[in-house]
Amino acid sequence: MVVAYEGTALAGWQTQPGQRTVQALLEEALAALCGAAVRVEGSGRTDRGVHARGQVAHVDLPAAAAARRLRRGLNALLPPDVRVLSVRVAPPDFHARFSARGKEYRYAIWNGPVLPPHLRHTHLHVPRPLDVPAMQAAALALEGRHDFSAFAANPNRVVEDPVRQLERLSIHKHGHALEIRAVGGGFLYKMVRSLTGFLLRVGRGEQSVADAREILAGRLRTARVPTAPPQGLILWRVFY
Amino acid sequence: MVVAYEGTALAGWQTQPGQRTVQALLEEALAALCGAAVRVEGSGRTDRGVHARGQVAHVDLPAAAAARRLRRGLNALLPPDVRVLSVRVAPPDFHARFSARGKEYRYAIWNGPVLPPHLRHTHLHVPRPLDVPAMQAAALALEGRHDFSAFAANPNRVVEDPVRQLERLSIHKHGHALEIRAVGGGFLYKMVRSLTGFLLRVGRGEQSVADAREILAGRLRTARVPTAPPQGLILWRVFY
Repeated sequence: MVVAYEGTALAGWQTQPGQRTVQALLEEALAALCGAAVRVEGSGRTDRGVHARGQVAHVDLPAAAAARRLRRGLNALLPPDVRVLSVRVAPPDFHARFSARGKEYRYAIWNGPVLPPHLRHTHLHVPRPLDVPAMQAAALALEGRHDFSAFAANPNRVVEDPVRQLERLSIHKHGHALEIRAVGGGFLYKMVRSLTGFLLRVGRGEQSVADAREILAGRLRTARVPTAPPQGLILWRVFY
Repeated sequence: MVVAYEGTALAGWQTQPGQRTVQALLEEALAALCGAAVRVEGSGRTDRGVHARGQVAHVDLPAAAAARRLRRGLNALLPPDVRVLSVRVAPPDFHARFSARGKEYRYAIWNGPVLPPHLRHTHLHVPRPLDVPAMQAAALALEGRHDFSAFAANPNRVVEDPVRQLERLSIHKHGHALEIRAVGGGFLYKMVRSLTGFLLRVGRGEQSVADAREILAGRLRTARVPTAPPQGLILWRVFY
């Protein structure tokens, strides 16, 4: 199933006791529909306050359920900030997380003096004009296969390979709306928000393209890479 | 000043005791900035739950205030669902309401099976496909100078001329997003939501173009003209 959510009032994807999370809301709705506990597996976690347009999850259902009826049933039970956009039957070996070949994230910024009220939950507001060509040059320098340790948070010191293939990191501007798009085989924890935080510093003239290469090569998190806040981030698409 | 607001948590434009309204929030912020009570005059009221992208209001300030500084000061004090988009000095005889020559309203509908979460506060959800060409034909029949009594609510039996010039009533479709745009010299109370409610019935095949002409000529409100809910309506622009 493809799931969309507005993360403002959600404590992220993953079930946590006493918290309003997408996984828990989906599992509750499925339990009510199926009359039995059903485990929902997502393509990956999203943090508190982060949105999704194309999160993908799979469920192993006890009996064949008509996909269309399942979507309607779930949406009737879910709150309006979480929607199941589509449901379809997957091959038996499909796994939302392990079968994923890549992801696209987008980060939405309103780069104008006043943030329009209806965008306040889904855009980061940056009032001062950003240097978009400088951001584009820095983004280009970050593309490719690198050790992205300097652009990740690793609070639990998880031992994992920090090398990732960043297929595309691009900046798109339409009027005051600025969007950073990141496409890659996989992302480290808080990697997109870290890349965004750094690119915003470049846009403000505080960092340069040369800094991008230097920080990347340093492979250590530094204060020059702040984490951008969650409300601009959206999990756009998962590739299989 | 041009004012935008997302009406979800607002009790409309006009100050009412104990209610969170745009006029009251603006007057509070201005009082804090100016150190004196300031009356805010809007181009007209908007109802509870209705949004604005281009509401216009004027204030008579005790002393000349730099327009740009006033915008920043107001936005620093206002809640994020109300924003002052621009401020400029108007001629002494300008009046937001009496100088207005016309208005544009838009009504946003999501005509697809699932309403995307981030649009839930600003769009009416109509899951079943609407007959857009039929709606366009009916809209065309309603354009022009007419007695719009059948498309207005008049709860307080106000004696006012019910003849209005509806310059344009048009339907715009982009994928699942459907927008009704109404441009006119002035609108009766709940007129746009009534026109929308009727056009939605046409879109569902419950009313026809001939009905549009008949209801208009009848000049009496009828159950065939329901009032569409407020969350899809946005005051788009005021013409001077």
